[in-house]
Amino acid sequence: MKAGVERLDRGVYSVSGVHVLEAAAVGGAMEGAGPLGHVFDHLVPDDLDGTGSFEAAEASLAFTAVRRTLDKARLDASDVDVVLGGDLLNQLYSTNFAARQHQIPLYGLFSACATFTEAVGIGALLLASGGPARVVAAAASHHMAAERQFRYPIELGYQRTMTASWTATASGALLLAGSEGGGAGDGVEVTAVTAGRVIDFGSRDPMDMGTAMAPAAADTLGRHQKATGRRWSDYDQILTGDLGVVGSRILADLVPDATEFRNRHEDCGRALYGSDQDVHNGGSGAGCAAAVFAGWAYPRLFRGEMTRVLMVATGALFSPTSYQQGESIPAIAHAVEFSWRTEAS
Amino acid sequence: MKAGVERLDRGVYSVSGVHVLEAAAVGGAMEGAGPLGHVFDHLVPDDLDGTGSFEAAEASLAFTAVRRTLDKARLDASDVDVVLGGDLLNQLYSTNFAARQHQIPLYGLFSACATFTEAVGIGALLLASGGPARVVAAAASHHMAAERQFRYPIELGYQRTMTASWTATASGALLLAGSEGGGAGDGVEVTAVTAGRVIDFGSRDPMDMGTAMAPAAADTLGRHQKATGRRWSDYDQILTGDLGVVGSRILADLVPDATEFRNRHEDCGRALYGSDQDVHNGGSGAGCAAAVFAGWAYPRLFRGEMTRVLMVATGALFSPTSYQQGESIPAIAHAVEFSWRTEAS
Repeated sequence: MKAGVERLDRGVYSVSGVHVLEAAAVGGAMEGAGPLGHVFDHLVPDDLDGTGSFEAAEASLAFTAVRRTLDKARLDASDVDVVLGGDLLNQLYSTNFAARQHQIPLYGLFSACATFTEAVGIGALLLASGGPARVVAAAASHHMAAERQFRYPIELGYQRTMTASWTATASGALLLAGSEGGGAGDGVEVTAVTAGRVIDFGSRDPMDMGTAMAPAAADTLGRHQKATGRRWSDYDQILTGDLGVVGSRILADLVPDATEFRNRHEDCGRALYGSDQDVHNGGSGAGCAAAVFAGWAYPRLFRGEMTRVLMVATGALFSPTSYQQGESIPAIAHAVEFSWRTEAS
Repeated sequence: MKAGVERLDRGVYSVSGVHVLEAAAVGGAMEGAGPLGHVFDHLVPDDLDGTGSFEAAEASLAFTAVRRTLDKARLDASDVDVVLGGDLLNQLYSTNFAARQHQIPLYGLFSACATFTEAVGIGALLLASGGPARVVAAAASHHMAAERQFRYPIELGYQRTMTASWTATASGALLLAGSEGGGAGDGVEVTAVTAGRVIDFGSRDPMDMGTAMAPAAADTLGRHQKATGRRWSDYDQILTGDLGVVGSRILADLVPDATEFRNRHEDCGRALYGSDQDVHNGGSGAGCAAAVFAGWAYPRLFRGEMTRVLMVATGALFSPTSYQQGESIPAIAHAVEFSWRTEAS
């Protein structure tokens, strides 16, 4: 089927003919020790991964996620039109240095921890334009690199509050294709895309991202639901990332039909680590949602264990500068709907 | 004509039916005092523009460029599907805070000073997908905010080298539409898009961006030329941004048919300031290429003074962290071809 798009509302599009060809998830030691440890395609043994810095290690993770995805699809870098990707580091350090290595044309993106669904959303629409044949959507983060950039020098050993999230050392990538790139037949497709708005409820605690981001998730879920006409029960799973324990509880208070919602809601940040791993609110970071979707949700869709998943990655759009200037923390959430589709449907 | 895309090569697309509806350029006092001072729609009187910080002033510039563009098109924010935009600040401070104000769904982008052509390129392909009806592509930068983030505290009063560029206090925005968003008839269209690769020639001087970025511009120009079959003489102007004096000279040494090229090449950074303004290599910053195209090149296309322009914004993808870790400076350049088209053509 030829790829196509229908505009349902401002920023909300129904998509057809855009296939997920492959996915790969890469993580660190702590991610490997968690309840989703078995879903990773590759685990790096330590925080430096053979490089000279945490930032270079993040670039290595970002590169490896793209490389593994292509290996699994038996494709080369030259078979991909464009990588759509981003990370949390200033000036997208890891995404840009990974792209220096893979040499695939790059459109760099930033929506903080919502970058992955921005990448998949743009990627699906680009493929539906009939332009690119194949794109890779990717995102990465690294705990140690994020800590020293956003919070305190690691050596300080400060005590984290109970609402604080733990930036995941992880990267996930998805290979998407229209029919000309080999996307055909039964499989997982991107079936709807919603671009988020910047929502700011006046939250000011940089150690509580879940509270800052939950209203943005609610806004995007509401716009998506209204334009697509879907009910929560149409989904096997509604996967947010990364609201964690605190943000997930708030989100359930902000959406209609809360019981229906709660029954099928899971959060990437909450799912990634075990309660014994002392991460408090849960995982976060641009790589968290990307790796959890690529390693955990996509394979279950592919195996037919789920038929429709709504993925809503959330991002807190603050910077250390905006925070130090006394600004509140705006947030954004981008949604992508994935469905198992048979040739005939 | 219905919008459409044809894949010419990996990352290179021919586009039809994507119209530029309006454009606006906003600048600071120094930009207003330069040779292009008359092309700005709005000039802010001082570096703070009534805000409390240079970063907040940049957000105000970014907002104003979007607002002015919509005012000129007699449209409201609610008439736009998505803003595609970015800036140089960590975590896209100005783009995100501007989007908090205009409340248009946002896909945040980062390609450093090449962000504007990334935005227009993605925007054109999104419109060609038949999804969004109208998008705004935008980019912003602020001299004082960039200085203290990338270089030294302003109070230091350090001496700039002769190869250093001057980050422009500027923002530019372009309103793009397919036929369903009112794009019709004679006018300026996006006719081709090339996504750049990350190119690193090993340059290590953060005070010489022109040298670091010229090879990326040459790579993108070469790929664009090869895939589209265009010659330099097919363009009234080939506009790079922001190589400045130094980078423009190097670029002319890297492209074939150098004389043909030089005859129609202009650089946004070189054009923005006068030789009496002591900016050394010329202007730079994500807002430089955006404002120079929106304020200077687009109106000449619109008035029929030019019929085809190739716009190649260039970005240096270093961060203070990558530089301090001894990394060389990778660069990227994204190309967009604009053509005057009559209904019949």
